[in-house]
Amino acid sequence: MKIKQTTVEEIAAIINCPIIGTPDQMVTGINEIHQVEAGDVVFVDHPKYYDKALNSAATIIIIDKEVTCPKRKSLIISQAPFDDYNKLTRHFSPYKPQTTVVGENTIIDPSATIYPNVTIGHNCTIGKNVTLYAGVVIGDKCILDKSVIVGPNTVIGHYAFYYKKKDSGYDRMHTCGGVHLHKNVEIGALCTIDAGVSGMTVIGEGTKLDNQIQIGHDTTVGKHCLMAANVGVAGCVTIKDNVTLWGQVGCASDVTLEDGVTVLAQSGIGKSLEAGKTYFGSPCDVVRVKFRELAAIKKLPELIEKI
Amino acid sequence: MKIKQTTVEEIAAIINCPIIGTPDQMVTGINEIHQVEAGDVVFVDHPKYYDKALNSAATIIIIDKEVTCPKRKSLIISQAPFDDYNKLTRHFSPYKPQTTVVGENTIIDPSATIYPNVTIGHNCTIGKNVTLYAGVVIGDKCILDKSVIVGPNTVIGHYAFYYKKKDSGYDRMHTCGGVHLHKNVEIGALCTIDAGVSGMTVIGEGTKLDNQIQIGHDTTVGKHCLMAANVGVAGCVTIKDNVTLWGQVGCASDVTLEDGVTVLAQSGIGKSLEAGKTYFGSPCDVVRVKFRELAAIKKLPELIEKI
Amino acid sequence: MKIKQTTVEEIAAIINCPIIGTPDQMVTGINEIHQVEAGDVVFVDHPKYYDKALNSAATIIIIDKEVTCPKRKSLIISQAPFDDYNKLTRHFSPYKPQTTVVGENTIIDPSATIYPNVTIGHNCTIGKNVTLYAGVVIGDKCILDKSVIVGPNTVIGHYAFYYKKKDSGYDRMHTCGGVHLHKNVEIGALCTIDAGVSGMTVIGEGTKLDNQIQIGHDTTVGKHCLMAANVGVAGCVTIKDNVTLWGQVGCASDVTLEDGVTVLAQSGIGKSLEAGKTYFGSPCDVVRVKFRELAAIKKLPELIEKI
Repeated sequence: MKIKQTTVEEIAAIINCPIIGTPDQMVTGINEIHQVEAGDVVFVDHPKYYDKALNSAATIIIIDKEVTCPKRKSLIISQAPFDDYNKLTRHFSPYKPQTTVVGENTIIDPSATIYPNVTIGHNCTIGKNVTLYAGVVIGDKCILDKSVIVGPNTVIGHYAFYYKKKDSGYDRMHTCGGVHLHKNVEIGALCTIDAGVSGMTVIGEGTKLDNQIQIGHDTTVGKHCLMAANVGVAGCVTIKDNVTLWGQVGCASDVTLEDGVTVLAQSGIGKSLEAGKTYFGSPCDVVRVKFRELAAIKKLPELIEKI
Repeated sequence: MKIKQTTVEEIAAIINCPIIGTPDQMVTGINEIHQVEAGDVVFVDHPKYYDKALNSAATIIIIDKEVTCPKRKSLIISQAPFDDYNKLTRHFSPYKPQTTVVGENTIIDPSATIYPNVTIGHNCTIGKNVTLYAGVVIGDKCILDKSVIVGPNTVIGHYAFYYKKKDSGYDRMHTCGGVHLHKNVEIGALCTIDAGVSGMTVIGEGTKLDNQIQIGHDTTVGKHCLMAANVGVAGCVTIKDNVTLWGQVGCASDVTLEDGVTVLAQSGIGKSLEAGKTYFGSPCDVVRVKFRELAAIKKLPELIEKI
Repeated sequence: MKIKQTTVEEIAAIINCPIIGTPDQMVTGINEIHQVEAGDVVFVDHPKYYDKALNSAATIIIIDKEVTCPKRKSLIISQAPFDDYNKLTRHFSPYKPQTTVVGENTIIDPSATIYPNVTIGHNCTIGKNVTLYAGVVIGDKCILDKSVIVGPNTVIGHYAFYYKKKDSGYDRMHTCGGVHLHKNVEIGALCTIDAGVSGMTVIGEGTKLDNQIQIGHDTTVGKHCLMAANVGVAGCVTIKDNVTLWGQVGCASDVTLEDGVTVLAQSGIGKSLEAGKTYFGSPCDVVRVKFRELAAIKKLPELIEKI
C-alpha cells in the first residue's frame, strides 16, 4: 500500500529499531515481498529469503541480521521483522470495524444496482452499472470497475489467510490491501476473493467466475479467463489471459499459468504451466502424457497377473 | 419458458429476420435445446448441432443457414442466432433488479418460516411449511413445494454460468428460467442451485443435500437422492432416483446417472453411469475395476525394480 | 445434551415403552453414541451396534430387542429406537424458529464487534473481543470464546446432515447440540461448521481455518491446526493438535488424525493417520510411498510398450 511520504528515520522510530543506510531516505509505501515497488518498506526474517528481499524493488528492508546494505537502499535491523512490519501496517492502516452497511470514504456510482442486505467496506469504489446481488460482502479498499457483476452472498476482500507460526500459536499478518475487479468481470454466487496483504488481488477484464470459487490474496488473474464452479486458487498466483480452469481444479501458491492454459476438472496444479497447453490430473501433467498413463494403468492389473 | 401465444411472424419481426415456413404458425414458448417442447422457439448456430435442433421437439428454429425446413416447422434465418435468441428472451422476460426483500408476484404461504435477512425474487411460490434459514437468497421464478428446508446463506436460482465466446469476450446467455424444489427437499448451508436457462432446474421429492453443494443450470435430480458436502454437479445433468454422491464428487455436464448409482468421495464423473452400480476415481470407474487398479499400482514400484 | 434430572420411568413414559432394569434410575442427559456419558440415554437399532451401545458410557439404552441388561444400567425396549430417540430430543429441546436477529437467552459480551446482517440463535455465548463479520449466521447453543473471529457469510451451528433411510424416504435426526469455538480460533469466509447432534462440535484453541471449509457434526479439531481453503471434513472425526490440511483435502467420518499430521492438497482421507506423518493422494498414503507410486506410473507406459 501507498503511504503518505515519510523518511526511513520516522519509520525506524515507530518500531524503535536502528538503521543501516540513509535516515532521510524517502519512504512512499509498505508492501509484502510479492508486491514491492521502489520507495517501499519490505521485511525478511529468514536467511533463505535475504537475497530476494535485498535485491527486490523495495528501497527499505526490515531484516533480522546486520548485512551489507545494497546501494541506494537502507536497512532497518529488527529482532522481529514480522512483528515490526505488522506494527507498521497497523500504524498506517488501522483496523476500523464497520457498523454501517456502507463504510467511510466509499463511492458508489448512482447507476449501480445494489440488492438487499449488501455490505460495502471503507474506501471502496463501485463503478458504473455494477450489480451487487443480495448478501454480497465487500471488504475495505475494493475497486469494482464498470459493469462488474457479483453474485449473491459472495465475499470480496476478506483478509488474507497468512500466518506466522510462533511458540504461542499462529500470528496473523495484518491485511491492508484490497481487491480490484476490472470491467465486465462477473463473479458467481458464494465466491471468496481475498484482499491482497498490502497490494491488490486483481481479476482482469471480462473474466467470468462460476459459483463457490476461492481466489487467494495477491493473486492476479488475467483477461477473459473462465473458471468453473468449486475452483480453488491459492495466494500469490499469476494467471495470464484466456486461461480456462474447469470444475474443482486446485492451484498451489506462487505458480504462473501462462496465456491460454486449460486445466481439466479436478486437476491439481503444483507447478507453473506453459502457454496454450491443456493439463489434467492431481498433480497435473500435459493431457497427452496423463491420458497415456491412465490407459497404461488400465492394463496394469492384467500385466501383473501375467508376470 | 412459456410465453403469451404469438406467431412466427411476430417473433421474426422482433429480431428483424426472414422466415422459411409458415408465418402464422403458433409460438407458445422459448427454450434452450435441453428443455424444448412443441410450440417452442429454439436456436442453433453451429453445423454440428443443426440436426439436433431441426429434429428436436421445437417448432421454430432460429438458424444461421438456409436449410430445408422440416415438415410442420418454421425456420427463422439469423446472422447471429445466439444474440437474436437472447434478444427474444430479454423481450419476453426483461431483467428487473430487486429493491425489496420480497419481489413482485411472489406468494409465500403463511405457514412458512422465514428467518432474518432472507431475500426472495419475483414470481416465486413458497409452499406450506417451508423453512428458509437466515441469509437465504432465492432468485426469480422459483417454486418451493411443501416442507422444503433451505439452509443459511444458500443461494437458489442465481443465473446460469453459460457464455458464448466472441471476439470481444464472453457474452452471457440471458437466464429466464428458475428452480423447482419438490416436497421434502432439504438443502444445507451455503449451497448454490442455479436457475435453468429457459426452463427449470429440478430437485426431486425427498432429496437431501449437505452443505456447500453446487448444482448447475437445467440439471434434474430425482427423488430420494443424497449428496454429501462439497459435491459439484455441472449444468444439464440428469440424475435419476436414489442416487448417492459422497463428499467432493464432481460431475461434468450432459451426463446421466441412472437409478441407484453410488459414487464414492472425490470421484470425477465424465460419462453416464449405469443403474445400481458403485463408482470411484477421477475419472471414475466401477469400484471393482478401480480398486483392482489401485492394488496393482501399489505393487508397481517393486515390479519396476525387478524388471 | 444435558437435561433436567429425571428417571428412566419418566423417559419411558414419554415414548410409551417398557423397561428392563431400574425404573427409578437417574437420567441426566440424552446423547448420540459418539458423545455419551454416564447418566445418558442412548439408542441402538442395529444388531451390529448392540455391543457398542450396551458397553458404552451410557446408562440407559433404547434398543429394539430384549437382551440381557448390563449391570447398573437400564434398557428401554422400543419398536423404533431412532424415532423414539428423536421424540425424546424434541421433547427436551423443541425447535423454536428464530424471528429476531439475536435469539433468546443469548449473551453477547459488550466488547464483541458485530458487523451488519449477522444472525445469532438461541442460547449462545459470544465472548470477549469476538469479531463476527457481515452476514455470519450462528445457530443455537453455540459458544464462541475470547477473541474468536468468524469471516463474512460463514454459518456456524446449522443442523447435522444425519438421516435414517426409511421406506417413506430419509428421516432426519433432530439436532439439539451446538458448536464450541475455543479462544483465538479464526474461521474464514463462507465456511460451514455443523452443530453436534446432541453434543458439541469443537474447534480447539488457536486453530485457523481458511475460506469455504466444511466441518461436519460432532467433529473435534484440536489446538493450533491449520486448514487451507475448500477442505471438507465429515462428521464424527477426531483431529488432534497441530494438524495441517492443505487445500481441497477431504476426510471421511469416524477417523482420527493424530498430532502433527500434515495432509497435502486434494488428498482424500479414508483411514486414521499416524502422528507426525505427511500424507498425499486419494485415497491418501504416506508421501514417500505415494511419490514412489507416482514416479512408477510415469515409467509405466514405456514399460508396457517394451513387454
